Amino acid sequence: MRSVFRFAWLIPVLATLAHAQTEKVTVDRFFAEALAHGQAYENLRVLTTQHPGRLAGSQSLEGAVVWAQKTLGALPLDRVYTQDVMVPHWERGAPESVLLLDSAGHCQPLAAAALGNSGATPADGLTAEVVEVKSLAEVRALGRTRLAGKIVFFNRPMNPAVFRGMTAYGEAGDQRNQGPAAAAAGGAVAVLTRSLTHALDDVPHTGNTRFPPESAAIPAAALSTLAADRLAAALAADPHTRVHVAIHARKLPDAPSHNVIGEIRGSEFPDQIIVVGGHLDSWDITPGAHDDGAGVVQSIEVLRLFRALGLKPRHTLRCVLFTNEENGLRGAVRYAQLAREEPGRHIFAIESDNGGFAPNGFNFGSTQGDAHLRAARWRGLFEPWGLWNFSKGSGGADVGPLMLAGVTIAGLTPDSQRYFDYHHTAIDTIEKVNPRELHLGAAALAALVWLVDTQGL
Amino acid sequence: MRSVFRFAWLIPVLATLAHAQTEKVTVDRFFAEALAHGQAYENLRVLTTQHPGRLAGSQSLEGAVVWAQKTLGALPLDRVYTQDVMVPHWERGAPESVLLLDSAGHCQPLAAAALGNSGATPADGLTAEVVEVKSLAEVRALGRTRLAGKIVFFNRPMNPAVFRGMTAYGEAGDQRNQGPAAAAAGGAVAVLTRSLTHALDDVPHTGNTRFPPESAAIPAAALSTLAADRLAAALAADPHTRVHVAIHARKLPDAPSHNVIGEIRGSEFPDQIIVVGGHLDSWDITPGAHDDGAGVVQSIEVLRLFRALGLKPRHTLRCVLFTNEENGLRGAVRYAQLAREEPGRHIFAIESDNGGFAPNGFNFGSTQGDAHLRAARWRGLFEPWGLWNFSKGSGGADVGPLMLAGVTIAGLTPDSQRYFDYHHTAIDTIEKVNPRELHLGAAALAALVWLVDTQGL
Repeated sequence: MRSVFRFAWLIPVLATLAHAQTEKVTVDRFFAEALAHGQAYENLRVLTTQHPGRLAGSQSLEGAVVWAQKTLGALPLDRVYTQDVMVPHWERGAPESVLLLDSAGHCQPLAAAALGNSGATPADGLTAEVVEVKSLAEVRALGRTRLAGKIVFFNRPMNPAVFRGMTAYGEAGDQRNQGPAAAAAGGAVAVLTRSLTHALDDVPHTGNTRFPPESAAIPAAALSTLAADRLAAALAADPHTRVHVAIHARKLPDAPSHNVIGEIRGSEFPDQIIVVGGHLDSWDITPGAHDDGAGVVQSIEVLRLFRALGLKPRHTLRCVLFTNEENGLRGAVRYAQLAREEPGRHIFAIESDNGGFAPNGFNFGSTQGDAHLRAARWRGLFEPWGLWNFSKGSGGADVGPLMLAGVTIAGLTPDSQRYFDYHHTAIDTIEKVNPRELHLGAAALAALVWLVDTQGL
Repeated sequence: MRSVFRFAWLIPVLATLAHAQTEKVTVDRFFAEALAHGQAYENLRVLTTQHPGRLAGSQSLEGAVVWAQKTLGALPLDRVYTQDVMVPHWERGAPESVLLLDSAGHCQPLAAAALGNSGATPADGLTAEVVEVKSLAEVRALGRTRLAGKIVFFNRPMNPAVFRGMTAYGEAGDQRNQGPAAAAAGGAVAVLTRSLTHALDDVPHTGNTRFPPESAAIPAAALSTLAADRLAAALAADPHTRVHVAIHARKLPDAPSHNVIGEIRGSEFPDQIIVVGGHLDSWDITPGAHDDGAGVVQSIEVLRLFRALGLKPRHTLRCVLFTNEENGLRGAVRYAQLAREEPGRHIFAIESDNGGFAPNGFNFGSTQGDAHLRAARWRGLFEPWGLWNFSKGSGGADVGPLMLAGVTIAGLTPDSQRYFDYHHTAIDTIEKVNPRELHLGAAALAALVWLVDTQGL
């Protein structure tokens, strides 16, 4: 009898080792299955070629809604449904045009894309002198004396010496987000902004700008970085250089759209919900492969991977494809509102909205602030697959409203060096996506979700 | 007096903190300078557009040698010189052609590229039945009975479930490296191999194959992965499917080439040498942007970064651009031989030969085997720039001969998911290189070299 009990201490040790081994085996299975049989890339090809330009209010977006329901339904899942969401409806209208007029009266087209929420010029455009600025502070300092009747040109570039793309984007982005409103307050007639990218090329990058409710929207467009440099050079040579701008955008009444949700019901805690998601909408001028087609197809792939591996989540697992992230966030707000009203409670929500590039890690946001430290205990499972960075961060715009409601949120953190080459442009196409990188991201999401589901966070 | 000595313990503490701060400041300066003002990308653009197809024995390679001397000389450096190297001279000749003949006699071209060292077919080609195999073992088992007079078709793909590209490449590569020789020993008249890539497309990937001195070279070509699948499907439908192969390659007498070296003389230990390098040659069908133009321009950039930051290396710092890595390694062997003969001694040599992708870390090879553990003490300096992985590895082919002579060697470890999409193909072009990723790699090399130079490894 005694010899039996002599080795009793081995039992918890062996159990721990076995558990650790199961952990590793399952995480590795997610990655191997995604790399060998991932369907995300093919789904992304269909989404971006059949439903490009998925702007809130567009037919393309609602076509994508139907595609998403069909694709989720085919996995199959326990439930596929939509949530009705009223979304802002802004349209670009006829193609914009920005022309640099030299002193001899010759016109040189400058590659440009109107910003979301831009106002319109008169039908045959407007012509004015240009004031180049590098910051909102500079605009406010110049005031009506210098700005009234002018076109304000924001030309502070994204800082190339900053490592993370999203950080440099955030630092330079106030020019696009708030610049037109600040310029309008100073009496400017239009705004041009340098595209938010590190690349030097002739591809304009659109994006949202915001006017306060009491202020009229003025015409605003982003110039390609090459066009911005040409305009700056022209102004340096002749401060009275004029530019002609024609933008035909219009704001329409809010339109109906939809979040799309696919669900596998939890086997033990069906009233506790884990969300993995991305946003289904995109800007109008882009097929939106990286932004955020990648997040959409990766989220669908997470549920497919659970099915392929024969795994039943203990908690209810939802793939949520949000509408209207780009210019309103109404999908995310609606989802969080309905989440408060439903009987279940959300325990974790992760978003992929930084492109389909090789995943480096995850970033976590929570009201307690230390979820990233707890998740870092799983780091050893992810390092063989290239992920190592478990940091504090903001997760993703669409899961932000859930964090405000107390849910721990996260975001997939991919390599960020290429994202802003394509972000919000016509060149964010399927060819810019590498299938292996995309599928590694999907596997990473699935593995983290599985770990949270089986062990908690 | 006593109170002065009470705080004496602070001195080493503050000195350590100051030292750590200097370390971080300098490493960050390398990265900021490379990201903001890196010249590697422009150098790569010139190298790949003016000197594509830099195969050993070609005029293009010797043109690149002249370009490299000029580019290094312009930095400026203390010394720029070349080493004479006799290199093997194989030429592809007129374009190869591989045709799938169906039972009705129709020809379907299969995208193909002759392998380096391939023999030639008769001038108007040869036609034979095809035996598909998945391994060298299978070829040896089949023997003359099944192989004599046939074309052997190696069709085992790179394993998609393996994370690291180089690992999957190594596992599948024996088919290309040794398959034709094994097939020739069995009486095969020619060999076709599936291109070594994860991509499914119509781009053939060349590469070297080796015949033992006593064996005649038979014609051997790599098929694009799509062509390989088409051939496999045809064979499954009709095992007597025939293929026509025409390859006009020829082996010429060895030709003169050159390693190119740029040097900054060490301020304290000029007879101790640190090498950073890449290989200047490429396959003939490719501009060689990632393989290995990236390593070449990153190595040049390391010396530019030292100059730009006003840093004088304590040891002699050499940028070594090796010739003939792709099909002979004669440049590396010659360099190591001359290194043994010169008065100085090498203390560290690092190569970049895995593409200009975002750097993830470094791999170290040494006879003691623990250099990666010692280098890992610097990990905290690199993590803000995306590098984290300090592992044991093989460094790079060109610094391998130095390791055999007792030198600690290393290689830059970039993200590996895209490399084999372009490796040894016509599509390894400048457009596939992201300037930020390339410059991050250059900065990483420079920072590690500086740390080894100032602290030892």
